[in-house]
Amino acid sequence: MKFSIERGTLLKAVSQAQSVVERRNTIPILANVLIEAEGDQVQFRATDLDIEVVDKTPAQVERAGATTVSATMLHEIVRKLPDGALVTLVDDSAAGRLSVEAGRSHFSLATLPKEDFPVMASSEYHSNFSAKAPELRRLFDKSKFAISNEETRYYLNGVYMHVADGEEGRALRCVATDGHRLARIDAALPAGAEDMPGVIVPRKTVGELRKLLEDDEMDIAVSVSETKIRFATPDITLTSKVIDGTFPDYTRVIPQGNTRKMEVDASDFARAVDRVATVSSERSRAVKLQIDDDRLVLSVNAPDSGAAEEELAVAYSDERLEIGFNAKYLLEIASQVDRENAVFLFNSAGDPTLMREGNDTSAVYVVMPMRV
Amino acid sequence: MKFSIERGTLLKAVSQAQSVVERRNTIPILANVLIEAEGDQVQFRATDLDIEVVDKTPAQVERAGATTVSATMLHEIVRKLPDGALVTLVDDSAAGRLSVEAGRSHFSLATLPKEDFPVMASSEYHSNFSAKAPELRRLFDKSKFAISNEETRYYLNGVYMHVADGEEGRALRCVATDGHRLARIDAALPAGAEDMPGVIVPRKTVGELRKLLEDDEMDIAVSVSETKIRFATPDITLTSKVIDGTFPDYTRVIPQGNTRKMEVDASDFARAVDRVATVSSERSRAVKLQIDDDRLVLSVNAPDSGAAEEELAVAYSDERLEIGFNAKYLLEIASQVDRENAVFLFNSAGDPTLMREGNDTSAVYVVMPMRV
Repeated sequence: MKFSIERGTLLKAVSQAQSVVERRNTIPILANVLIEAEGDQVQFRATDLDIEVVDKTPAQVERAGATTVSATMLHEIVRKLPDGALVTLVDDSAAGRLSVEAGRSHFSLATLPKEDFPVMASSEYHSNFSAKAPELRRLFDKSKFAISNEETRYYLNGVYMHVADGEEGRALRCVATDGHRLARIDAALPAGAEDMPGVIVPRKTVGELRKLLEDDEMDIAVSVSETKIRFATPDITLTSKVIDGTFPDYTRVIPQGNTRKMEVDASDFARAVDRVATVSSERSRAVKLQIDDDRLVLSVNAPDSGAAEEELAVAYSDERLEIGFNAKYLLEIASQVDRENAVFLFNSAGDPTLMREGNDTSAVYVVMPMRV
Repeated sequence: MKFSIERGTLLKAVSQAQSVVERRNTIPILANVLIEAEGDQVQFRATDLDIEVVDKTPAQVERAGATTVSATMLHEIVRKLPDGALVTLVDDSAAGRLSVEAGRSHFSLATLPKEDFPVMASSEYHSNFSAKAPELRRLFDKSKFAISNEETRYYLNGVYMHVADGEEGRALRCVATDGHRLARIDAALPAGAEDMPGVIVPRKTVGELRKLLEDDEMDIAVSVSETKIRFATPDITLTSKVIDGTFPDYTRVIPQGNTRKMEVDASDFARAVDRVATVSSERSRAVKLQIDDDRLVLSVNAPDSGAAEEELAVAYSDERLEIGFNAKYLLEIASQVDRENAVFLFNSAGDPTLMREGNDTSAVYVVMPMRV
């Protein structure tokens, strides 16, 4: 194998690959990236056995071939090379080394045989459809904060992507919850996704996917089976196992009868919550909301350190309500609001509260109250 | 006590104080800042018993008085208040609370009696002199990287500031070393510093001092005794105990007879060292320098991961030399060079090497070689 490639192009391809590689590996080859040169292009492939990313890029290939080399080390070297440098990679399989040359820099890196690299088995995909990058970005960005970290509830360690009946017809829906709060985000159902099986996309995959979605104009090809999901741009293919579990019936959690409506400027609300929470103790982060006649009083009372209170003008005409929440949860859902006011729908102080952006029901959040 | 103050002014004063406060305290009052209002100004005082910082700022004082309150919490609250807000602080000593009011935000913070606050005893200072902020900044910035982290060698856990015979007459000198590398920085001796006792300024004090030195035009009043050092601007006074120990005789470590001179562009050199060090293992970070006829070859050989080599044009006309160094130490000293080329003076592969910037002997670095 021998090919030459511009440093910037190489860095982009290797960056995407190396980020999938886990820092600590008991299986040495999982620390490596598989480099395959053929025709006029080079493929970089990395995996952690659950996720595989393949990045294709054009290069001047002088001799086809393949080898594997430490993903982190290759990435570090390319990152440190001067911008614009032409980099030449030559595999010496007899010596078990890959030489990397650029200007007066020469590197010789230990390789492992390409045959040992675990390429993910190809699958039959049940559904194939195309989605715009900003649509997918919205679905995952607005739901991922609610993913659970509890490993015992492994079926909550991801975003549940499925087809559902939304308020405006059939929708592609992403849901995440940790039992304390829930996010439910809908997008128009793309053609070809109608029969898609519901899948739980793991947290790490959501993070890796994010890097494919930066370009607003990009169409992402999505393929889904019962066990795998694949996202592809012309250059990058991200394949991931999905979580083998059943996502709980979240619809029961979303309150239908909450009628006590409060409307508030989301960023004013977030800043006020953040301020009063300053005096709360590290263990309990409870904030009390007292709502009455277009007036919201946020307060925290921490006997050891002090107390805080702040008043906000809101739109509220129902009867007086006192309800408590974890400050962190309030801040997180308030920060999802982009354009309009935050609308809270309460029932009683013991019932889950619903939050949405204005009258938009395509992004709905539920948060459990806490006793204050 | 009752006073009002603009949020930005308050934030600046409280920031400086709270940074001295240790995050974990067994003595509760050490987490607090002492606030004293009198006349038309307010003083904020914080200490960790080794360092004390006092920040004075004008305020509209309505009622003189003093109290203490959590430094971190007050800082967080003020930081989160909107810019331009007028903040009013009122002490209710009967209730043991300090109220902080700004717009519609109300805070009530637990206080501790001002009498319990450990104010550092005032001292007689042996020497008093004035130094420009950029001079002091240079002395400490260029030496602090060499401060030792080994607690057993506590007398190396700071910068040794003293009066010495420099190449251009009497000098105010800062020296730091950890036994592997050494920095020796000279500045013109300020009037009044002639009889200053040599003191070891602790690492944390060096860090806190840095914040007083941002303004190029500022004159810093320095006072030194055998046990304490004080740095003062019109607003801020930083007083610190010095390390109670004897700094070793560093002059023996600085080689006098090194004649093999290599001159190299410092940033090219640093970048090349950084690149070849990429392949080195985590434990050993040795880089080999081979110098011959205006040509430097940097190389690293790590049997497990690979090898790296890079060539640089240098000015060198002495006989061929091979010498090894810790890559981190080479990078650190090379990054001290601001304007001119780095000049290395070698003796043999087993002897300490000297580095300076061009012909400037007011900043000299020594680094021990390692076997490669």
